[in-house]
Amino acid sequence: MSGIVVRNVERAPLEIVDGLGASGVATVHEAQGRTGLMRSFMRPIYGGARIAGSAVTVSAPPGDNWMVHVAMELLKEGDVLVLAPTSPCEDGYFGDLLATSAIARGCRGLVIEAGVRDVRDLQAMGFPVWSKAVFAQGTIKATLGSVNVPIVCAGALVNPGDVVVADDDGVCVVPRAEAEEVLGRARAREAAEEEKRRRLAAGELGLDLYDMRGKLEALGLKYV
Amino acid sequence: MSGIVVRNVERAPLEIVDGLGASGVATVHEAQGRTGLMRSFMRPIYGGARIAGSAVTVSAPPGDNWMVHVAMELLKEGDVLVLAPTSPCEDGYFGDLLATSAIARGCRGLVIEAGVRDVRDLQAMGFPVWSKAVFAQGTIKATLGSVNVPIVCAGALVNPGDVVVADDDGVCVVPRAEAEEVLGRARAREAAEEEKRRRLAAGELGLDLYDMRGKLEALGLKYV
Amino acid sequence: MSGIVVRNVERAPLEIVDGLGASGVATVHEAQGRTGLMRSFMRPIYGGARIAGSAVTVSAPPGDNWMVHVAMELLKEGDVLVLAPTSPCEDGYFGDLLATSAIARGCRGLVIEAGVRDVRDLQAMGFPVWSKAVFAQGTIKATLGSVNVPIVCAGALVNPGDVVVADDDGVCVVPRAEAEEVLGRARAREAAEEEKRRRLAAGELGLDLYDMRGKLEALGLKYV
Amino acid sequence: MSGIVVRNVERAPLEIVDGLGASGVATVHEAQGRTGLMRSFMRPIYGGARIAGSAVTVSAPPGDNWMVHVAMELLKEGDVLVLAPTSPCEDGYFGDLLATSAIARGCRGLVIEAGVRDVRDLQAMGFPVWSKAVFAQGTIKATLGSVNVPIVCAGALVNPGDVVVADDDGVCVVPRAEAEEVLGRARAREAAEEEKRRRLAAGELGLDLYDMRGKLEALGLKYV
Amino acid sequence: MSGIVVRNVERAPLEIVDGLGASGVATVHEAQGRTGLMRSFMRPIYGGARIAGSAVTVSAPPGDNWMVHVAMELLKEGDVLVLAPTSPCEDGYFGDLLATSAIARGCRGLVIEAGVRDVRDLQAMGFPVWSKAVFAQGTIKATLGSVNVPIVCAGALVNPGDVVVADDDGVCVVPRAEAEEVLGRARAREAAEEEKRRRLAAGELGLDLYDMRGKLEALGLKYV
Amino acid sequence: MSGIVVRNVERAPLEIVDGLGASGVATVHEAQGRTGLMRSFMRPIYGGARIAGSAVTVSAPPGDNWMVHVAMELLKEGDVLVLAPTSPCEDGYFGDLLATSAIARGCRGLVIEAGVRDVRDLQAMGFPVWSKAVFAQGTIKATLGSVNVPIVCAGALVNPGDVVVADDDGVCVVPRAEAEEVLGRARAREAAEEEKRRRLAAGELGLDLYDMRGKLEALGLKYV
Repeated sequence: MSGIVVRNVERAPLEIVDGLGASGVATVHEAQGRTGLMRSFMRPIYGGARIAGSAVTVSAPPGDNWMVHVAMELLKEGDVLVLAPTSPCEDGYFGDLLATSAIARGCRGLVIEAGVRDVRDLQAMGFPVWSKAVFAQGTIKATLGSVNVPIVCAGALVNPGDVVVADDDGVCVVPRAEAEEVLGRARAREAAEEEKRRRLAAGELGLDLYDMRGKLEALGLKYV
Repeated sequence: MSGIVVRNVERAPLEIVDGLGASGVATVHEAQGRTGLMRSFMRPIYGGARIAGSAVTVSAPPGDNWMVHVAMELLKEGDVLVLAPTSPCEDGYFGDLLATSAIARGCRGLVIEAGVRDVRDLQAMGFPVWSKAVFAQGTIKATLGSVNVPIVCAGALVNPGDVVVADDDGVCVVPRAEAEEVLGRARAREAAEEEKRRRLAAGELGLDLYDMRGKLEALGLKYV
Repeated sequence: MSGIVVRNVERAPLEIVDGLGASGVATVHEAQGRTGLMRSFMRPIYGGARIAGSAVTVSAPPGDNWMVHVAMELLKEGDVLVLAPTSPCEDGYFGDLLATSAIARGCRGLVIEAGVRDVRDLQAMGFPVWSKAVFAQGTIKATLGSVNVPIVCAGALVNPGDVVVADDDGVCVVPRAEAEEVLGRARAREAAEEEKRRRLAAGELGLDLYDMRGKLEALGLKYV
Repeated sequence: MSGIVVRNVERAPLEIVDGLGASGVATVHEAQGRTGLMRSFMRPIYGGARIAGSAVTVSAPPGDNWMVHVAMELLKEGDVLVLAPTSPCEDGYFGDLLATSAIARGCRGLVIEAGVRDVRDLQAMGFPVWSKAVFAQGTIKATLGSVNVPIVCAGALVNPGDVVVADDDGVCVVPRAEAEEVLGRARAREAAEEEKRRRLAAGELGLDLYDMRGKLEALGLKYV
Repeated sequence: MSGIVVRNVERAPLEIVDGLGASGVATVHEAQGRTGLMRSFMRPIYGGARIAGSAVTVSAPPGDNWMVHVAMELLKEGDVLVLAPTSPCEDGYFGDLLATSAIARGCRGLVIEAGVRDVRDLQAMGFPVWSKAVFAQGTIKATLGSVNVPIVCAGALVNPGDVVVADDDGVCVVPRAEAEEVLGRARAREAAEEEKRRRLAAGELGLDLYDMRGKLEALGLKYV
Repeated sequence: MSGIVVRNVERAPLEIVDGLGASGVATVHEAQGRTGLMRSFMRPIYGGARIAGSAVTVSAPPGDNWMVHVAMELLKEGDVLVLAPTSPCEDGYFGDLLATSAIARGCRGLVIEAGVRDVRDLQAMGFPVWSKAVFAQGTIKATLGSVNVPIVCAGALVNPGDVVVADDDGVCVVPRAEAEEVLGRARAREAAEEEKRRRLAAGELGLDLYDMRGKLEALGLKYV
């Protein structure tokens, strides 16, 4: 089941990908019915980055980053590399040399349920990573994995070509076929929130804004 | 036992609260006999914030943030919201809209044994949070909890109106009735440390400053 | 087996120590055959610091920092304090007063498989720490431990006088007797990487640069 | 705040304690409104034990079991020892000698948010323990703690004299003043479940037994 | 995306399911190319059980077990219930009443990335469970989830009708369409192991049996 | 630094090894000054086993069990295999075939800071294992490690030929050169405990038996 590389992967149009990136993880997660969120242990190596990209997926053996080199050739402008090891591992699959290569291919960042190293350099290069660990442990190149096959990364199913959104809140995966519709709902949500934000800032309470008092009383909430 | 909201909570005078905030977590924790400290997994979403406030407590079902809206109405200038879920949970109970509302009520920050989201926005707004996780996972509004009842948050008992101090070292709870006395001891401690700091900076050893050599020798410490 | 303090410890020459520090954790770890790395839970209290120093080791009882004071006297210019508790503990063994003293002794930083506090002050003082936790919990001075004996810290064996390298990637220990040779290999590695970095930045693929295509094909990698 | 031993503690009548023990953790937890449950990391050292007892509480420094000896004198027939360290610790505070003493005092078991050792002997003696860890690490007797003061153990507030129920499902704390009422509700719950169990065993569905179909349809559940 | 119940799910023939169960997790995992294994935190509530069954999947909100009742109606002889919460949760979704009902429907066991309770009763009833936690915490019935949709459980993708194998080694998922082929490979593997077991028991070394000495020497293994 | 196999390792006499095994982990740990204990996450795969043996150590790459086959040849009657991966890993390095071989070589058990599988079979064969995880994940045979070199396993330094004691309390390592002396102290400790056990069982308190009352009073313990 390993040793497969899928060359051609359909991607969402870049303007949709970029739109999802602008909305960010929390909004996109809500806009698609609260699905696709990776586990909270996936943390950015530095704060402030917000990206979206089309997933090039890597399924790699524990402690073996050979398939990252294979994936590199398949990266296109606007892609994000997404790696899940075939068994839990926090070795440092990726560092500054691979980031140099990834940037040269137009890659926007890395999402990895394992470790990463050279994080100071990666930050200086502006190459964001969301990972399970920062760990200098070196990897080998001995065993095949697969590229652009469906993977489960940090609890979320990722198909190649899915849109991956990542920021300080974590990582969320949008199925490619739903990307446009999710973007529409994300923008509608943002527009709706603008008015709420204005009213809440003015001191109005959510209890009134969302008309909650009656429901709470009906359920028996008691003020003492 | 849930579904209770206590409207009126006695608070410590704001100058005492502010004094404790200025002393910070490590000093306050020492000044009250090394009690009241929350578990070390409670981390700030951004560095550098140091706050103190009177606790408005929330006991909420897992994945349900309805009671946060109820608590919002009870917040006064100088308060800190403290939330513990009724079973372990790391969903994102709180984001930028709630922070907008909390700031409008004079709230100084959030302490939550669960998750928070929109952390980039919260940092931009200057609304500090100490949480167990950063997690975009949305919550619902379906079940009652309680507001301003005693809770256990991250291993520490918090009564409504207690003073909560939080900074980069973590979170510490000071019982309201002891706040003034603890502040006195914290200030005495700070004064005493000033002289020690000067002498240590000049190269004097703690072994001499604290007169430890004799005790260590008596216990049998051997230099080889 | 405790209660021992070794006064005189051989150290590597400072120019070798400094050279290893300049290379950083990932490179040094590779240069010595991927050994000596501490567990990934050892994280810096603030980003951007990179140090190397000769280890002054402390074996301390849980929740008891007395031996840190004993160790302080033995610190020399260019040393790093390395502490492992005798059973798992995350109490705050070290804060701003001890850091003041350590800086006065020429100490470059602390590596501790336990907790640390006053982290805001430590950052302001420029005293870097790699720890298992940030935790304000106070410690006592009641029981003997040992100083400058071999310890296991975060999974790595540390002998007094070993060179400890630490940066944003973690902490790596170089046996003193191998320090010079490791430095040589680290520098050779850096030189070799320079050319690779240039070629990768120009768009060349690792698949070609490292001549991997044939081996991958031989192992049966299939493109579809 | 430490160094306090409260000699006289009010306890619930033994027949109420025993009744709660017969009901078990899950039922008692439900009967008191889903409160009082300790964290799930509190596991029995052997399967099959089910106990209830009045809490004699111990607040102990990390790695120091001196207060267990102090508590021993205060144990009465039907008590359970409950220990929380003042900072996280998994050292082995308790082994077969202490169990010998506890059994001689009529103690029914130990609940400890730390470690325990000699577990094979404890099982042979029939002395059940619920702990955070099994760990042989020895402890010292150097620093005071307190006995029979309120403690937070594994996330639950325990007052001396509260009823502690423990079985394979974990540990639940019942406030002494509510013990009788909770027992009544527990028994009512058991009676009600008997009939449900019979009907479910006969193949009736919960959907029908609890009349859920209408509510699910109203909320929009779709069968496809 | 929630609120969906799929009534009709294709299942593998029971003799294939039973064959996979007889082979057990380790063999089946190998036979399908080392895929489909759930995370190691999924542990049986009692030792010695070994089952296989067709998956009826449940996606449930955190702390809400309503959908388990919905799933109950869809269980057929030889099924296994598989539940993943929509965000991490260890509440006790399942206890002895639900097990009574499940047994009445012919269900062989439960696999749940959350908590379970009444484990003593479940063992007495012979109803095996693999779970992330044993936890008495009660759940509610307030929000819709889905039944028989694809889920990710403990890191493994599970489609309704897939074959789930579980024993003391953990849990492994076999895609329905591959079940027969995997069974064939599992049996071939068992046959091949029989001979190896005999030779190893007789003292022959794996080094010779698998002809490893030459390869090891070629790679440079040095005996000293 | 890898690729080394040390053939000849000095071992402690078997009667000393067996004596330490009879004393068990908690007693041996105390007898050697509370050192050598592995982390508490090292748990037996079944209860009741108590072994001691001379360590044959294995340093293995993550997910690669080739060196276990190499080690097998070096096992002698009374040995225990001790394996630490070179980076954190919980894959199943060892199963029933390897156990068959190990038993044929006189090996008494396995201590592994990683995973193990076929645990039902291992229990049936009476081959005890202490591991970090039970996990069916298969391993490969591609990269060299080392056999009979010093390793750090679960926080403890293990030299080849050291005596490893393991039971339900965990795992403890005794340096070979100290084995005889430690055994002497262990037996003295057991003799001393016999009398204490008798007196405690008769109801005498540790407070009196160990003459603690005066010291506690001197430190300020207050009974209220």
